[in-house]
Amino acid sequence: MSKKQRTAINPTREENFPKWYQSVVREADMAEMAHVRGCMVIKPWGFGIWENIQQILGQQIKDCGVKNAYFPLFVPLSYIEKEAQHVEGFAKEMAVVTHHRLENTENGLKPSGELTEPLIVRPTSETIIGESFASWIQSYRDLPLKINQWCNIVRWEMRPRVFLRTSEFLWQEGHTAFATAKEAYDDTIQMLKIYKDFSQERLAMPVIDGVKPSYDKFPGAIDTYCIEAMMQDGKALQAGTTHNLGTNFSKAANIMFTDTDGEQKHAHTASWGVSTRLIGGVIMTHADDNGLRLPPEIAPAQIVIIPIQRGKDEQEDAQVLEYAKKLKDSFKGLTFGKFNTKVNVELDDTLIKSSTKKWNWVKKGVPIQIEVGPRDIPENKFVARLRSEETYEKHFLTIDQIKTEIPKFLETIQKTYFDQAKERLDSSIKEVDSFDELKDLFAKDYKGFVLAPWNPCDEEDVRLKELKITIRCVPFEYKKEDKKCILTGEDTNIKAIFAKSY
Amino acid sequence: MSKKQRTAINPTREENFPKWYQSVVREADMAEMAHVRGCMVIKPWGFGIWENIQQILGQQIKDCGVKNAYFPLFVPLSYIEKEAQHVEGFAKEMAVVTHHRLENTENGLKPSGELTEPLIVRPTSETIIGESFASWIQSYRDLPLKINQWCNIVRWEMRPRVFLRTSEFLWQEGHTAFATAKEAYDDTIQMLKIYKDFSQERLAMPVIDGVKPSYDKFPGAIDTYCIEAMMQDGKALQAGTTHNLGTNFSKAANIMFTDTDGEQKHAHTASWGVSTRLIGGVIMTHADDNGLRLPPEIAPAQIVIIPIQRGKDEQEDAQVLEYAKKLKDSFKGLTFGKFNTKVNVELDDTLIKSSTKKWNWVKKGVPIQIEVGPRDIPENKFVARLRSEETYEKHFLTIDQIKTEIPKFLETIQKTYFDQAKERLDSSIKEVDSFDELKDLFAKDYKGFVLAPWNPCDEEDVRLKELKITIRCVPFEYKKEDKKCILTGEDTNIKAIFAKSY
Repeated sequence: MSKKQRTAINPTREENFPKWYQSVVREADMAEMAHVRGCMVIKPWGFGIWENIQQILGQQIKDCGVKNAYFPLFVPLSYIEKEAQHVEGFAKEMAVVTHHRLENTENGLKPSGELTEPLIVRPTSETIIGESFASWIQSYRDLPLKINQWCNIVRWEMRPRVFLRTSEFLWQEGHTAFATAKEAYDDTIQMLKIYKDFSQERLAMPVIDGVKPSYDKFPGAIDTYCIEAMMQDGKALQAGTTHNLGTNFSKAANIMFTDTDGEQKHAHTASWGVSTRLIGGVIMTHADDNGLRLPPEIAPAQIVIIPIQRGKDEQEDAQVLEYAKKLKDSFKGLTFGKFNTKVNVELDDTLIKSSTKKWNWVKKGVPIQIEVGPRDIPENKFVARLRSEETYEKHFLTIDQIKTEIPKFLETIQKTYFDQAKERLDSSIKEVDSFDELKDLFAKDYKGFVLAPWNPCDEEDVRLKELKITIRCVPFEYKKEDKKCILTGEDTNIKAIFAKSY
Repeated sequence: MSKKQRTAINPTREENFPKWYQSVVREADMAEMAHVRGCMVIKPWGFGIWENIQQILGQQIKDCGVKNAYFPLFVPLSYIEKEAQHVEGFAKEMAVVTHHRLENTENGLKPSGELTEPLIVRPTSETIIGESFASWIQSYRDLPLKINQWCNIVRWEMRPRVFLRTSEFLWQEGHTAFATAKEAYDDTIQMLKIYKDFSQERLAMPVIDGVKPSYDKFPGAIDTYCIEAMMQDGKALQAGTTHNLGTNFSKAANIMFTDTDGEQKHAHTASWGVSTRLIGGVIMTHADDNGLRLPPEIAPAQIVIIPIQRGKDEQEDAQVLEYAKKLKDSFKGLTFGKFNTKVNVELDDTLIKSSTKKWNWVKKGVPIQIEVGPRDIPENKFVARLRSEETYEKHFLTIDQIKTEIPKFLETIQKTYFDQAKERLDSSIKEVDSFDELKDLFAKDYKGFVLAPWNPCDEEDVRLKELKITIRCVPFEYKKEDKKCILTGEDTNIKAIFAKSY
């Protein structure tokens, strides 16, 4: 591709990261903001990624002995009120249903049939699932109980950003109940590990796992664990969370069981979730100034075949299309990588110019683009280009080589994307020992995370708030040293990740 | 099993069909009504059926060139108002969001932040998807456009019945747009065929396909096609519908395209859907007085293994469990039937009595129940019982026979369920030639469908309304004869299906 065409996305990451992001989403035809305030339309190319997340992560969740189920969209106000911190945490962003029909009036249709109790469109389902758990759990024999649902969630959003913050989004929420505190804790750690592995091995998105400051935990939880990823602008994205709810919600919903000793006890519960936000993470981790780059493990299609039809000779064009179809069939049953992921192939036979087509697929981030023209037919040849190669150079292959070469290419692309992101993450964590150092760094437009000594406390430091810096987590792994907390000067051997964030 | 235990479900079908239905759902642990008015909780065993429907039918829909996507939950009131028949059809059952937060007041939490325009929780998505289609479709090159979404739907329900009529339910809705009227028509016919085949081949539920009377079509459609199944009480269940929307919705939403001739034209659209109601259909088609019977093609698990542990000798019990696990592993990779459906096996190692376990799985309708006890271990034996056999007799098998015998059993069960339902349907369609005959039949508590001459008209006959009988459809297939319409006495060669219905 010529120099002049080199950046398909305007502006570039360097010029304006937020606008670059929006442009990537638009040019890749992944999603768009709806006319409905704060809601998004997820288009097939974006939704295909979500379907893969559902399918792969969904299976991993099932493999942990969790069963899928479905609970009501509407939460009665009285349920939400039962856990004080919980309602406080969500009250400002709840869509409230107050009527159950419309009525014709002189001034047009108006809401009618007022409900005696308003219903909240679920901002999360701890309270409504808790009601069910209370009736399902009677004895220790009913435990553990592990349930998951894939559903839509509504949290009213004043400053929506596609995939990152929208009034409606899709997610999975796991809800589990146990006889002991240890099991509930273990569950949050096990699920965080699954999220971490999924994020790294499938999304090629390296993350740091750790525990949230207590003032930033899920409203009503005793502890919240998280995975934090670094976007290309150095900001953190919270990519998944797991919550140890202790007995807070089981007390609110009266989830009790008769234990082996005959005693009535409150169950220990946990919850955990990831959302369509992950798609935003994939974009901001891998996309470049030519558009999206999709890790093969999660791409809706790993390969697109573009028939180069010159439009001069109908018979020739038909032969090229025929050959493209034959080529597509040659991929049947092909898998790649350690998970034996199925290779999906798209044949783009739309009625647009091949050069436009090629750029469209670069912008959509398909891992391998294959071109076939009239001269390839006699020799069973084709040209493959890898989205991961900056030069986008031609690889000449024959149909016979598909089985050996294509899986290798895909594995290389997957590895390349992860390595690039990991290298960026590792080289963008600075250690500091004082608040002034931290402040200076970000004042100089630092793009990255900061690791610094911190003594856990229950309230957010006002100086951080002013700088729009947050403590992302106390990571599970760091070198323990006796130091002074950069905020309070107190002794501590704990360190935390400080960063700007989404 | 002893005589005394023979009917696990109280009341029986004969005694009280509606209560029998509720009892089957409860005893099979499939779902329950939520405390939230008219909403249901779909429990894992019920949701597993929906997951299979999503997976199998979802693939069939994709194979038709349809792409999955996701559109907002909320529909602005102004969108709904654009199509007059449409809003009239749904106005009385809409959940209306009027506020976007809660505020603390002296009298507790109250809705706050009133919306300038109320939002309707989608009762169907023609209007909101139409808005997107209007912006996506510019030229004939953008057509056909075929989109599907799996989502939740809300239609406020005053007399809810689990799976059959609930305020919230799950469904898939396909939305398609074409350049010509013929393509839109063809799409409705093609999708109805897919629903019919799915219903018959997977759910083992025979259906009659046809077209709805015009007064009973989807609000805003030009024609609605349906598949109608017969439940064991002789009532009809509308199991799936496809709607030819003509240009009604494209005019309302301004979905226009530049055709090959350079003219601006309105697209022709169609929509089609099936819902969690199908699960109700499966129950009322196949369940008996011992509970659910699940067609293997759609069962969350085709086989359950029950280790018979006597609780007298710990070592023996451990060996039985070990053997049960080994047996379960022997099913890995096994498929059955013409679709090569994967055999899923559950091992029930819960801490309850084996006799209770066995009955639980009868009630859950698992196609094959396998028991293993200490004496089976040395000879690699096990006992299989088929839910389709009234006598529930023992089949003695060895592990070596799994590959050959189990697929045969499952295919037989699938065929048995379909044949039984087909036999019931075929023998429960009576032909009559006058309204009096029809009336007499139902007065004598007739359980079935009636096929009778009918001259299509635009308003429902008041006499049918009084008898609570509806015209289910004009079937695609029946013997054409010159007759008199049983309602008007007019000449007609058309026949319709009359029935009581859900």
